[in-house]
Amino acid sequence: MKIAFIGLGIMGKPMAKNLLKAGHELTVFDNNADAINELVEAGATGAESSKDAAKGNEVIVTMVPNSPHVKAALLGEGGAVEGAEKGATVIDMSSISPLASREISYELAKFGVNYLDSPVSGGEPKAVDGTLAVMVGGDKALFDKYQSVIGAMASSVTYVGEVGAGNVTKLANQVIVALNIAAMSEALTLAKKAGVDPRSVYQAIRGGLAGSTVLDAKAPMVLERNFEPGFRIDLHIKDLTNAMDTSHGVGSQLPLTSQVLEMMYSLREDGHGGCDHDALALYYEKMTNTKIAD
Amino acid sequence: MKIAFIGLGIMGKPMAKNLLKAGHELTVFDNNADAINELVEAGATGAESSKDAAKGNEVIVTMVPNSPHVKAALLGEGGAVEGAEKGATVIDMSSISPLASREISYELAKFGVNYLDSPVSGGEPKAVDGTLAVMVGGDKALFDKYQSVIGAMASSVTYVGEVGAGNVTKLANQVIVALNIAAMSEALTLAKKAGVDPRSVYQAIRGGLAGSTVLDAKAPMVLERNFEPGFRIDLHIKDLTNAMDTSHGVGSQLPLTSQVLEMMYSLREDGHGGCDHDALALYYEKMTNTKIAD
Repeated sequence: MKIAFIGLGIMGKPMAKNLLKAGHELTVFDNNADAINELVEAGATGAESSKDAAKGNEVIVTMVPNSPHVKAALLGEGGAVEGAEKGATVIDMSSISPLASREISYELAKFGVNYLDSPVSGGEPKAVDGTLAVMVGGDKALFDKYQSVIGAMASSVTYVGEVGAGNVTKLANQVIVALNIAAMSEALTLAKKAGVDPRSVYQAIRGGLAGSTVLDAKAPMVLERNFEPGFRIDLHIKDLTNAMDTSHGVGSQLPLTSQVLEMMYSLREDGHGGCDHDALALYYEKMTNTKIAD
Repeated sequence: MKIAFIGLGIMGKPMAKNLLKAGHELTVFDNNADAINELVEAGATGAESSKDAAKGNEVIVTMVPNSPHVKAALLGEGGAVEGAEKGATVIDMSSISPLASREISYELAKFGVNYLDSPVSGGEPKAVDGTLAVMVGGDKALFDKYQSVIGAMASSVTYVGEVGAGNVTKLANQVIVALNIAAMSEALTLAKKAGVDPRSVYQAIRGGLAGSTVLDAKAPMVLERNFEPGFRIDLHIKDLTNAMDTSHGVGSQLPLTSQVLEMMYSLREDGHGGCDHDALALYYEKMTNTKIAD
């Protein structure tokens, strides 16, 4: 299939490569020329703008940081919509506000361009392996038509409802991930301060009801004082801010998430915004004057 | 081995039965005569007090609700220590304050009685199946000597450190479980209020970083509006209160746990103290005027 791919960052680059490996014909664009060159060497065609990339392609994939970047890439000056043909379909794999997804979908429809919001879960390693989890909102028939394209980048592709539902699901995911990391940090700090080896605690509880993917992924990292991203605090701040905005907009509340978001702002202030989100442990360490592990 | 078993409640009864099945010789006591009779029919000898139960037994297992009950059963009038021989070992499987564990250990030592704090994780079904997870604090040689006795009731027995470490580990476990249930409730409420089916969200995210034992155990229950215990809110309030006390005592803080404890008090006020801890979802439903599932 002829596909435009816009946004060749840490995630976008390996995702685009997996589309190439699956036999698709790719035209790529990014503000970073080096990233374009890397994909051209892998077999893609380079473009000079999002508009240029979109021309003649049935599908336009976007993978950029947040709502304003998606709007710029699709609807801004030199945006994809200026080059896209009627009937083209945007698969937006960025994690953005659900409300922004709905706005973008509405604007694209004016140009006869379809839209699926398809944010991904899983970091760079899963993007490389093509084992991301993708949650998709939009027209069901459109989803059925392009599920296999998304499948070239993912091990799980789940249809979750109308446009925006993909990003609502992603926000729910990010709320749980943030709170589960905080829960782990809070518990391991308690153990350490109470004089019990956090390693023993981790081993004793991981097989029971306290077990989680977060615990198995992040506790060993914290115990090795490994705060290399992975998924950066700065990006989790972005997601939780979108979650708060969405929640307030629909009359809901996120009492624990709001507190973890404040912890993340404190970490950013301490210069840890570029750390993995397991650095929530550093917040607890600072508050309790201790180190979970040496 | 000759074992006294004190405390034949929902958990204690099946645990005692598993000790019988493993070939141990049991003398049992509980304030409820019916519970004693049930164990006598299963092959145990009934006793008239904790003191009476302790006589002539190498091991004394206690499985009662909280610190005051353990103190009464062991050190109170007619308590086990009055009947116990020097060199006997108390295996206290109750979930109590680590500080209380240390006090009890200190008092028992005056009578030449040993002590292991060995709280369990896992509810009634795991007690019945003999697949509890047990976290043990105390003298390592003592642990080695009695690990197989504990093993008759458990699929996992982990030594975690000195006396009190078992209960510190259990509190860390309960902190994570409470926060992970709240995380799930907060996320599914957001999804529902934002118009996305919580069932789809659960299916889309369970395999990723948001996945957890809590999510797989409790999300289906909440989606079926099943709040039958399981593990009651009232008992989780007891554990989190012990966690708060312990935390403050060692100069630590539990900012998220304190908030979830307040949620649980609100649920108790609404008459939900006897519900499973998955009823945390009801707190979010009340605050947002919604139902996660109908």
